[in-house]
Amino acid sequence: MRFTPATSSDGVTERSFTLGEIPGVLWTPQDATGPRPLILIGHGGGQHKKAPGVVARARRFAAEGGFAAAAIDAPHHGERPKTEEFARITAGLRAGMAAGEDVSGHLATMHTFLAGQAVPEWRAVLTALRELDAVGDGPAGYWGMSMGCALGVPLVAAEPRIGAAVLGLLGADGLAENAAKVAVPVLFLLQWDDDRVPRDQGLALFDALASPGKTLHANPGGHGEIPEPETGSALRFFARHLT
Amino acid sequence: MRFTPATSSDGVTERSFTLGEIPGVLWTPQDATGPRPLILIGHGGGQHKKAPGVVARARRFAAEGGFAAAAIDAPHHGERPKTEEFARITAGLRAGMAAGEDVSGHLATMHTFLAGQAVPEWRAVLTALRELDAVGDGPAGYWGMSMGCALGVPLVAAEPRIGAAVLGLLGADGLAENAAKVAVPVLFLLQWDDDRVPRDQGLALFDALASPGKTLHANPGGHGEIPEPETGSALRFFARHLT
Repeated sequence: MRFTPATSSDGVTERSFTLGEIPGVLWTPQDATGPRPLILIGHGGGQHKKAPGVVARARRFAAEGGFAAAAIDAPHHGERPKTEEFARITAGLRAGMAAGEDVSGHLATMHTFLAGQAVPEWRAVLTALRELDAVGDGPAGYWGMSMGCALGVPLVAAEPRIGAAVLGLLGADGLAENAAKVAVPVLFLLQWDDDRVPRDQGLALFDALASPGKTLHANPGGHGEIPEPETGSALRFFARHLT
Repeated sequence: MRFTPATSSDGVTERSFTLGEIPGVLWTPQDATGPRPLILIGHGGGQHKKAPGVVARARRFAAEGGFAAAAIDAPHHGERPKTEEFARITAGLRAGMAAGEDVSGHLATMHTFLAGQAVPEWRAVLTALRELDAVGDGPAGYWGMSMGCALGVPLVAAEPRIGAAVLGLLGADGLAENAAKVAVPVLFLLQWDDDRVPRDQGLALFDALASPGKTLHANPGGHGEIPEPETGSALRFFARHLT
């Protein structure tokens, strides 16, 4: 794992890194030493590791929660090369959206394609980050909405070091089997008027999670309109289950 | 409004009162002076103003939130006389439950019968309590689950002094019209495995609320099994909207 020099502002230190082909960013409280919970943040489809929502959330997790937070570019996103196969899959998705079709099948295909690569990548990044003094062998959490949820459900199902997750903005299509393996506490966010995820499908994914400690927060508004107080809910949720 | 002498413990002062035929209890932070938010707490069916859940919640609202909190016996509950008409209605409900029938019609009949009396009673109690120095003309909130929600929806719809409400554990039967008049922020609690309220009916009542600032929290478990962290959520919700 190679790092660029750290920069600090408003009490948070930010460091870009690469692990093999994977570019990422780590945020920690300024001058942090010793183990602390690490929150992995999975970005949405078409976004990247430094999308404004990712950065704002990571900085709050570090500044207010005292956590470490990390984001990586998902395969075929951000700085990473896009293969022809991925281009074919996204072209099919875009054509379906333009035609006003139900694209849940296209989305599930894309998510399954990405998850096969993303899950082992996240696990390798988690192992490498835990070598750092300011992260250490503390518990890990995962935060991901929409595509970040699609990659997060199989990750959380597979990775015993992740002890709690905030997921949402996605339906059960293609995820039910992995959801049934998720047993850690989950805060699931659903937008009541989601223009991309049918309400019943989102409720079905929440229902499919095996976690005894799952909780659903639903709010009015469209896909990208999660209200601000939910960031505080996520902070308290991680604090309750990881510290 | 007549009061019995106050008693204080753990930083909270408790005073029983009667307003006409209505017996109630007021909780305030010990030695409180000056206006503060007042949370009206509506108990569940068959319960009363000093049911353990009501008392525990009221004391936390006072001790942690600095709020005043009040509960009254609903008509035909607690210390209050039960009429023959109410006995007939509850006998029908009990017979339906014993026979394993869908009792939502019986419940809606009972709730409509009670609400006609409970709504003006709560409004009179609110007016009287606001005369007290430790309550004053601050904003009011309402907390009520199950029957407390059935009486709360028409109350919040009718009473402009109530600025936020925590409601839940009830379906839309007989309440849709009043729910469509509720425009203040609502935190709605739903138990995912509720053995009394069908999930779709609970979601339909949340859907029917007109509030732009509504939010749904759903948790695994049966009708009476709201998890402990939701009391903290309610406290923060009232603090956000009433202070």
